[in-house]
Amino acid sequence: MCNNMLHLSMTHYRYHFDRMKYLDFVDTEYEPAPSDLLCEFLVETDETMEFDVAAGAVAAESSVGTWTELTTMRSYVEKLHATVYEIDGSRIKVAYPVELFEPGNMANIMSSVCGNVFGLKGLKHLKLDDIHYPEVLTESFMGPKYGIDGVRKVLKIPERPFVGTIIKPKLGLVTEDHAEVAYESWAGGCDVVKDDENLSSQSFNGFEKRLDATLKARDKAEKETGERKVYMINVTAETNEMVRRAKLVENAGGEYIMFDIITCGNSGFQTLREADLDLVLHAHRAGHGAFTLDPKHGVSMKVIARNTRLMGADQLHVGTAVGKMKEGEEEVLDNIECLTSEMHGVRTAMPVASGGLYPAVVPPLLKIFGYNVVVQAGGGVHGHPDGTYKGATAMRQAIAAVMEGITLQEYAEKHEELRKALEIWQTPT
Amino acid sequence: MCNNMLHLSMTHYRYHFDRMKYLDFVDTEYEPAPSDLLCEFLVETDETMEFDVAAGAVAAESSVGTWTELTTMRSYVEKLHATVYEIDGSRIKVAYPVELFEPGNMANIMSSVCGNVFGLKGLKHLKLDDIHYPEVLTESFMGPKYGIDGVRKVLKIPERPFVGTIIKPKLGLVTEDHAEVAYESWAGGCDVVKDDENLSSQSFNGFEKRLDATLKARDKAEKETGERKVYMINVTAETNEMVRRAKLVENAGGEYIMFDIITCGNSGFQTLREADLDLVLHAHRAGHGAFTLDPKHGVSMKVIARNTRLMGADQLHVGTAVGKMKEGEEEVLDNIECLTSEMHGVRTAMPVASGGLYPAVVPPLLKIFGYNVVVQAGGGVHGHPDGTYKGATAMRQAIAAVMEGITLQEYAEKHEELRKALEIWQTPT
Repeated sequence: MCNNMLHLSMTHYRYHFDRMKYLDFVDTEYEPAPSDLLCEFLVETDETMEFDVAAGAVAAESSVGTWTELTTMRSYVEKLHATVYEIDGSRIKVAYPVELFEPGNMANIMSSVCGNVFGLKGLKHLKLDDIHYPEVLTESFMGPKYGIDGVRKVLKIPERPFVGTIIKPKLGLVTEDHAEVAYESWAGGCDVVKDDENLSSQSFNGFEKRLDATLKARDKAEKETGERKVYMINVTAETNEMVRRAKLVENAGGEYIMFDIITCGNSGFQTLREADLDLVLHAHRAGHGAFTLDPKHGVSMKVIARNTRLMGADQLHVGTAVGKMKEGEEEVLDNIECLTSEMHGVRTAMPVASGGLYPAVVPPLLKIFGYNVVVQAGGGVHGHPDGTYKGATAMRQAIAAVMEGITLQEYAEKHEELRKALEIWQTPT
Repeated sequence: MCNNMLHLSMTHYRYHFDRMKYLDFVDTEYEPAPSDLLCEFLVETDETMEFDVAAGAVAAESSVGTWTELTTMRSYVEKLHATVYEIDGSRIKVAYPVELFEPGNMANIMSSVCGNVFGLKGLKHLKLDDIHYPEVLTESFMGPKYGIDGVRKVLKIPERPFVGTIIKPKLGLVTEDHAEVAYESWAGGCDVVKDDENLSSQSFNGFEKRLDATLKARDKAEKETGERKVYMINVTAETNEMVRRAKLVENAGGEYIMFDIITCGNSGFQTLREADLDLVLHAHRAGHGAFTLDPKHGVSMKVIARNTRLMGADQLHVGTAVGKMKEGEEEVLDNIECLTSEMHGVRTAMPVASGGLYPAVVPPLLKIFGYNVVVQAGGGVHGHPDGTYKGATAMRQAIAAVMEGITLQEYAEKHEELRKALEIWQTPT
């Protein structure tokens, strides 16, 4: 039993692992079954572990294996092992028999494929870069209730990108001022007004009072503009409280809620979705950058995007490529693909661009996103020199210019709001 | 308004931010109020942002600020700003007025202090390295129901480290074999038998049948050994299902449950704790390595440890320093400190050492942990050449040797189980 053990000095202590046991999990001749869950990992090893052994270790520790020979192993268990079926540079592809997972239980699936494996000695870096669910698993989750087609029906906007804003300052406004800023945003041209990710029910702006006041502002703006207006109120909380808040929104005539998918977590969100309310679910991804941004380590935003869609979000933040967030065009396009590509019949989810946007970046933004996008500008609306109303108008004008196929500069000649916005926030280069 | 803007070329697009706006959030003369929430970040900037500006950006974007001047700002909001009150090399300390947060809502607090800030352009790396809650917030969470004193009473073990095992293979055993391995573990000397993090309710070993069969095995082992034995069954699932499973355990006479704090998430766990069942809550941390292991980026395990204790886990995995997981002694000691130090009267939580343990590493392990620890060995029990029963006995003997103050080698002279374990898994160097 000892023959295959490597005896290498780790930081302080030896780590004994069974090299051959791990290599048992590598078979590049294996052809994945249609029912297999497929994961792509990026692997980097330190000097204590060969690459193939590390690849096998990832498949082993995320399925039925461990670091040593077991007296309790059974042949019927070995049949359930995961297999490294492709190795391409630092990228490995692993196939998991679907029996390893509990259908409809995202926490369970994540605990397997992106659980303990990150901490294994011998692995310098590990990133779960992508995941592909078989139909037997996609069927076990609720998926979006509305999807892109559904949210377009709610807003009665068949083609145009949605224009949204986040109430700013992100925290601190009292309820009356919050509702007033919301009203100005809608009246000026926004379709969507959204709370920020860390506004929930603070003393200065409690949830129930805010819901009431802001929906009244919405009604007023709808009446005055003749357009549909929606409010994405943040319900993020302990699960029961989150569902209670969502029901309040439904009862009060709201159509949308937002929640923080990363900080509330998979189990809380699944419960919210399973409440099956008549509400569009908008997922904010605050916190993702702690594990998505390192190209070599963590979990990619693609995985978060596929999972969030699968669990049932109708909309998800995917970066901007042009604003204050780090992701570039390629990452953003990948994220969009995860929300909109074929997924065994699961509805699509609407990509949301948010973070440091302003009118001048709208043309490059729409070039990347196309028109299926919620364009959310916070500071880029409320920072307009003539205030929120004009800031919302300027954003709407920027989108109109792109849809009419003319430059912002040309459009701005006859639209003062856009002109002023372009003066303070210049065209990106 | 434009005077303070830096115009620097980012990857593809310019990012306009208001340098002075961010510097407004730095005041190293500020003395934090007792009610402030305090966070320590490690910050690294790229060439586009000065360090002080970046420090201010972290405090701004995690409280009431944004990248541009706002027409909607109010003086009463500015009073709520966070303050960088200390800068020491790459470490900054930020004080947050407690009004920024909703008490008792962990997702809300995390969305603020470790939300969007990770993705800000200009920051090369950002790590939330530690967090200190004021009493007004610690009071708003339930905290552990048992804590170290409580779990020692449940197990009737006043001083000795608990000896635990994880059923291995981690996935795949059918219920009868699972229960049999559990029985052998308890009969051989384990106090605790734990499911692995990715066993929930799969087709081969459904939750309810497993609960029933394994508690029967526990009863048998208790009767035969005259010792208390506990089963930590994994209830991880969508929130309502997780709570339903927990209630089944309580009704069936179980004393413990386990759950995956990272993959189920804050909101689901808070709901589980608020069900306030008579069950010890054991938190597994599968997935943490995606964001805790990079010394420069993400969220530290210290933060997870403090949060998990605060929300109410009685036990939490904190690394081993001597096994197959990456963390060294210093990190593990930090994690233990987070579970056991004074926290405005919140009960302590029991540290759990798990991951690649075996008898030979028990002496250095207990030197690090002391006796308040659950020593969990999976492969180190079930990989024993004479099987699970003897493997459990060998682990118990290793702990007895340390408590009697003699070397394992000496103890092994009269204890064959330990001797055989030491032969296949050598003393660490």
